[in-house]
Amino acid sequence: MLVNCSAYEDGRKVADIPVDKISDYLQRPGCFVWVALNEPDAGELDAMQREFGLHELAVEDAHHGHERPKIEEYGDSLFVVLHTVDAGPDGLSVGEVNIFVGRNYVLSVRNRSQRGFTDVRARCEREPALLRHGAGYVLYALVDTVVDRYFPVLDNLESELETVEDQIFTRESGRASLESLYALKQKLMVLKHAVWPLHEAVGRLHGGRVPEVCAGLQDYFRDVYDHLLRINQTIDSIRDMATTAMSVHLSLVTMQENETTKRLAAYAALIGVPTMIAGVYGMNFEQMPELRWTFGYPVVLAIMVGIDIYLFWRFRRAGWL
Amino acid sequence: MLVNCSAYEDGRKVADIPVDKISDYLQRPGCFVWVALNEPDAGELDAMQREFGLHELAVEDAHHGHERPKIEEYGDSLFVVLHTVDAGPDGLSVGEVNIFVGRNYVLSVRNRSQRGFTDVRARCEREPALLRHGAGYVLYALVDTVVDRYFPVLDNLESELETVEDQIFTRESGRASLESLYALKQKLMVLKHAVWPLHEAVGRLHGGRVPEVCAGLQDYFRDVYDHLLRINQTIDSIRDMATTAMSVHLSLVTMQENETTKRLAAYAALIGVPTMIAGVYGMNFEQMPELRWTFGYPVVLAIMVGIDIYLFWRFRRAGWL
Amino acid sequence: MLVNCSAYEDGRKVADIPVDKISDYLQRPGCFVWVALNEPDAGELDAMQREFGLHELAVEDAHHGHERPKIEEYGDSLFVVLHTVDAGPDGLSVGEVNIFVGRNYVLSVRNRSQRGFTDVRARCEREPALLRHGAGYVLYALVDTVVDRYFPVLDNLESELETVEDQIFTRESGRASLESLYALKQKLMVLKHAVWPLHEAVGRLHGGRVPEVCAGLQDYFRDVYDHLLRINQTIDSIRDMATTAMSVHLSLVTMQENETTKRLAAYAALIGVPTMIAGVYGMNFEQMPELRWTFGYPVVLAIMVGIDIYLFWRFRRAGWL
Amino acid sequence: MLVNCSAYEDGRKVADIPVDKISDYLQRPGCFVWVALNEPDAGELDAMQREFGLHELAVEDAHHGHERPKIEEYGDSLFVVLHTVDAGPDGLSVGEVNIFVGRNYVLSVRNRSQRGFTDVRARCEREPALLRHGAGYVLYALVDTVVDRYFPVLDNLESELETVEDQIFTRESGRASLESLYALKQKLMVLKHAVWPLHEAVGRLHGGRVPEVCAGLQDYFRDVYDHLLRINQTIDSIRDMATTAMSVHLSLVTMQENETTKRLAAYAALIGVPTMIAGVYGMNFEQMPELRWTFGYPVVLAIMVGIDIYLFWRFRRAGWL
Amino acid sequence: MLVNCSAYEDGRKVADIPVDKISDYLQRPGCFVWVALNEPDAGELDAMQREFGLHELAVEDAHHGHERPKIEEYGDSLFVVLHTVDAGPDGLSVGEVNIFVGRNYVLSVRNRSQRGFTDVRARCEREPALLRHGAGYVLYALVDTVVDRYFPVLDNLESELETVEDQIFTRESGRASLESLYALKQKLMVLKHAVWPLHEAVGRLHGGRVPEVCAGLQDYFRDVYDHLLRINQTIDSIRDMATTAMSVHLSLVTMQENETTKRLAAYAALIGVPTMIAGVYGMNFEQMPELRWTFGYPVVLAIMVGIDIYLFWRFRRAGWL
Repeated sequence: MLVNCSAYEDGRKVADIPVDKISDYLQRPGCFVWVALNEPDAGELDAMQREFGLHELAVEDAHHGHERPKIEEYGDSLFVVLHTVDAGPDGLSVGEVNIFVGRNYVLSVRNRSQRGFTDVRARCEREPALLRHGAGYVLYALVDTVVDRYFPVLDNLESELETVEDQIFTRESGRASLESLYALKQKLMVLKHAVWPLHEAVGRLHGGRVPEVCAGLQDYFRDVYDHLLRINQTIDSIRDMATTAMSVHLSLVTMQENETTKRLAAYAALIGVPTMIAGVYGMNFEQMPELRWTFGYPVVLAIMVGIDIYLFWRFRRAGWL
Repeated sequence: MLVNCSAYEDGRKVADIPVDKISDYLQRPGCFVWVALNEPDAGELDAMQREFGLHELAVEDAHHGHERPKIEEYGDSLFVVLHTVDAGPDGLSVGEVNIFVGRNYVLSVRNRSQRGFTDVRARCEREPALLRHGAGYVLYALVDTVVDRYFPVLDNLESELETVEDQIFTRESGRASLESLYALKQKLMVLKHAVWPLHEAVGRLHGGRVPEVCAGLQDYFRDVYDHLLRINQTIDSIRDMATTAMSVHLSLVTMQENETTKRLAAYAALIGVPTMIAGVYGMNFEQMPELRWTFGYPVVLAIMVGIDIYLFWRFRRAGWL
Repeated sequence: MLVNCSAYEDGRKVADIPVDKISDYLQRPGCFVWVALNEPDAGELDAMQREFGLHELAVEDAHHGHERPKIEEYGDSLFVVLHTVDAGPDGLSVGEVNIFVGRNYVLSVRNRSQRGFTDVRARCEREPALLRHGAGYVLYALVDTVVDRYFPVLDNLESELETVEDQIFTRESGRASLESLYALKQKLMVLKHAVWPLHEAVGRLHGGRVPEVCAGLQDYFRDVYDHLLRINQTIDSIRDMATTAMSVHLSLVTMQENETTKRLAAYAALIGVPTMIAGVYGMNFEQMPELRWTFGYPVVLAIMVGIDIYLFWRFRRAGWL
Repeated sequence: MLVNCSAYEDGRKVADIPVDKISDYLQRPGCFVWVALNEPDAGELDAMQREFGLHELAVEDAHHGHERPKIEEYGDSLFVVLHTVDAGPDGLSVGEVNIFVGRNYVLSVRNRSQRGFTDVRARCEREPALLRHGAGYVLYALVDTVVDRYFPVLDNLESELETVEDQIFTRESGRASLESLYALKQKLMVLKHAVWPLHEAVGRLHGGRVPEVCAGLQDYFRDVYDHLLRINQTIDSIRDMATTAMSVHLSLVTMQENETTKRLAAYAALIGVPTMIAGVYGMNFEQMPELRWTFGYPVVLAIMVGIDIYLFWRFRRAGWL
Repeated sequence: MLVNCSAYEDGRKVADIPVDKISDYLQRPGCFVWVALNEPDAGELDAMQREFGLHELAVEDAHHGHERPKIEEYGDSLFVVLHTVDAGPDGLSVGEVNIFVGRNYVLSVRNRSQRGFTDVRARCEREPALLRHGAGYVLYALVDTVVDRYFPVLDNLESELETVEDQIFTRESGRASLESLYALKQKLMVLKHAVWPLHEAVGRLHGGRVPEVCAGLQDYFRDVYDHLLRINQTIDSIRDMATTAMSVHLSLVTMQENETTKRLAAYAALIGVPTMIAGVYGMNFEQMPELRWTFGYPVVLAIMVGIDIYLFWRFRRAGWL
């Protein structure tokens, strides 16, 4: 589905143009075309391939999807694959944005991604001074936007970790905490898969030999690179703490078991001692003087209760009950 | 066993040729020969070595097998070792494909590998425009096919992990889950051994100095490289999650033990308390007024049952029973 | 808030100058301006950007904050982000210092950082021989100070580890030790995030191509680099030992449980044996000669006590009680 | 002890020569001398040092032994340290082979190594075409042989792992499995220490600048390098699986404990319930009608047995017994 | 404290000289001065700084101490920091040796280090042929000595590990083994901190561009480098095995607990069964024929004992008792 197709000159929009006029505008010097597609069918992609002369392998990648994030050079043009990550009701959902960038065109293709880039276009059009940099700047704006959208996802994961830490340390460490930690690790893996390859790829856009399309924009891409580094580092920290939390959990569970065993031992003693005494006075010896005492029975009862109170107090003090 | 032996010119098959004519066709400019062997005996390999002038060490490797995946240059020619991985009834079975590639020939030798490459040959012959690239393109086609066949294996491993996760979290975490996780790790290791060295080797075919045979095909090999990277990353993720699943399993087993101990404590209390009371009234004191009450017996029985009901309710509420 | 704004010439302070005179002094050869801001508002930053001609992206980073430590070159000038780490009542609190350095100016911007740099300025002014190196030396002095302030934080963490080790090995290994270890790991992570990226960045100021501002100061920056390396290494050691301490803790907890179970077994035996004997003499057989013995009762009592004393001694010797 | 000392020319043995003639033969162009020592004393090493002009530090290393595997250049000559690893009755035994190689000589010195290299010499002498490469080829043949002898050791370790896996999963997971795993890890460490540094060192003989002695033999050394890579990778896999097996073992032990606790709980119930009932009918109330029933006793006995049968069936079904 | 101050020429000691004559000797061509200080005060260091023209930052480092091991170039001279490690009564004690080396001088400064270097000086003076290499050789001799002194420390740690392994596998795995393992890990960390940075630093003295002072001594420094590599590798192995030993310990403790639980269950059965039988014959039914049998009592006693003997035999055979 075609979302947008416009020509820009000198940092300002010239016109919304139909797809078959694209090649005309590409001829005009100082002019570039910016096309946005969403979940295109094969026909639309073919049309684009013809208009912009895209490389077959890149188009195939865009068509099949499920590529890892990357930035590839095909001659003068770049093919960029980005993953969008959105927090959905059951875990993170991953979408894909493919961007074809040449000297005088940008083509973005969204797949399974919930949010579009109309705000990026609007922002770019409000700043002609920057948009004058051409297709490379548009690429920067798109990548920057995708990366900025990782931050709220990351913040969510951080607060999930805090919730679980809270559960583990202040409440009962049960099954639920373990499941949350496991799910957290799965989500971190998903985010990592989106961020890590991109981070590597963007690194090649700000240092050393830079593709011509991005020339003069190194400072901008270094900024994106830095954000990706920060996200990466935070992911690693959360993973590390999640692993630590899992072993803390195991220790706590083992300690709880220890407490259960102590309680079991205390119960056994509290019940067992009176039973033993009662057993003694249930023996059938003919000569058991206590049995004939008038207050034998209440005295023995009192002794039983007394021992239990004493034991209870001892166990309580030792933290067994 | 000779599977196929054909000469190609300008992207089209010229003829199926007998083995002893190979050297004739190798002389013709613009012509290349593509031979496929399956589980060849020493004689067949020797014949090939003579026809194509293969390097002794490479032939020895192909003969002995059990090499790790690699791409080696011997002068102008390449010697490529690939592992095929098939999901068999008991674990993964690994086969080997050795490919000798020169300027004007491709020789593929399969060993212990279940599926052949006739579909690759057919596909190549349908696309003369690509096959015109020569022996390098055939190499790409073969490597790409082997790599593509890793994906269903990987998908299987991913669903095995999901099955085990399911087992662990929703049902009893028993021995079977542990064995599945262990087997999963073993399979990942096997797949990793096939993928990791190949990934390194293919990296040298798309960047920096490229062997002449593969010149002009960098974009294609970069594509394969990218798929290998993706497989690698997925393997690492599955391994990571499998390790996490194992420690989750340990925690869950410890928690189950805790629950068993609690249940044991609860049982002990439920049985012990009435036994204690019965013990008291089994004492032989002469002065025990309750023994003479008409309703002493039923009252004591009621007390026993009452206490047990109360305890049962308490334990149930505390989650011990 | 403007903290300080002075011009220096030949290693000595020339004058405290108002902000709008900065550009005048920047013109004077051999003169440099050193400005310090604390939690500036947007207006103050804008004024500075105009006076010094700072790069937009750098100013934006300084304004938004939450960047990772880094040293970026924008043409001839450097933009440095440092994290300050202070031990607060609940964990470590992280502040940010942004430093803009050009050939003839230094602008430091503090945010959420508790301690200022007036002592650095005072120390620099006392050593004109060194301050003569210009803006690069001021940068060194600031970075060196921030890094030196990490050491007491690190020392605190080291003694926290020692406290926990002490708790674990000499006293009961309880919940508190686990929580301390977890908190320690969190703090190490925070410190690591401040130190690690800075260490990488400073590495680029003492070897290979050095930014012009820092030329001739390599030995100084190598010294800072070395301190950062040492901090990094110590952080890694503490983390490693903390992880080890956690698994020691788990082993100790499991051993405690073992001891509890042994004690439970011993109790059960001490109570169970007399109960069993009493049960025997509570049987109602008509022919039980012992029941008629004059000293039957005291003898049986003595046997019960004797067995318990023996068992107690055995259990004590075996370390079960 | 001198094992062998021969001169070779044009790939063929010229003569077995006495030690003091070595320098004569070294003068003859196109001729090289190959000497083999086994556990030499200081005098023999000194003689060799004089004859071949070996570097003092290298001789010292060969004399003291206990060096790590390495390949060092001393001017035009190489000093190679290899470790031989033999499976002995109690663990692996490590020997050392030091090889001095110059343009026209090879000196091998064995220490604490069980198998010699007479088979290597015999094989070389059978292939004059290869031996014509000179001293470098002899070095290759020796290194290749040492490396090939690692494979059976590795295979042993692999089957040890399989034996332990079998023990763990199919039989009782006891102390023996743990000890085997620990011993396996120790052996892997020993083998790793022999292989890893050699792998690094051999890498320098097949790529980039190659020592002159080995010129023209890169393909051969690459082959050795590849075998070392494969051994390394297999070692890492076995270690990884051994670590996994240890945590599986822990989980299984914890599960066994759980089962023991369940059995304990079941026993307690089976014994406790009849005891409780017997206690009730052991009470001395005057009004207990059941006591007077003719069939009171057998009915109660039947109830006891009935309850126990029911409980037993329940526990059996739940897998507790 | 000044330990020694001598001038050397052509590999031989010329004279012991007073500190204020140092600069005179430094003028003489072909002559070098070797000074040794132990725990110098600020004044002594200042004097040296003046005599040799040492760099301020290096002197400051030597004064403050607590630097990490390193080799720094200041123009033509080197500043070397080494850690000495001695096994003390409670753990390892770390000392520091700072060495300033120039074209014609060596100054060594010891701090908190127990053993001096008089033996190094004596050995050097006995070998004028080597000492003729000048200051660089003295540096080599000092570094080599410090490194050689690590070996006995390492051997101690290796035998500590063996002792603990022995404890764990053959005797009771208790608290003491855990504490030993923890202490072992701490000591390894200390040694690692001394060795690892030095290993990196020495690497720069034998390959690539070498500081002029060390020119011609690469083979010697490579030897030191190799020893450091070996120490490093051994440290890593011991750490790895120590970590493995800790998890083995945990498994063994868990198995011991399992055994305790089994013993508890067995005890409970041995005591519980006779108690139950006695309970049955303690019931007060009027019609219990056994009670009237003449041998009822001994028969029941025999049954009790018989059952217990049978159970005991079963438990013993199953390894529960």
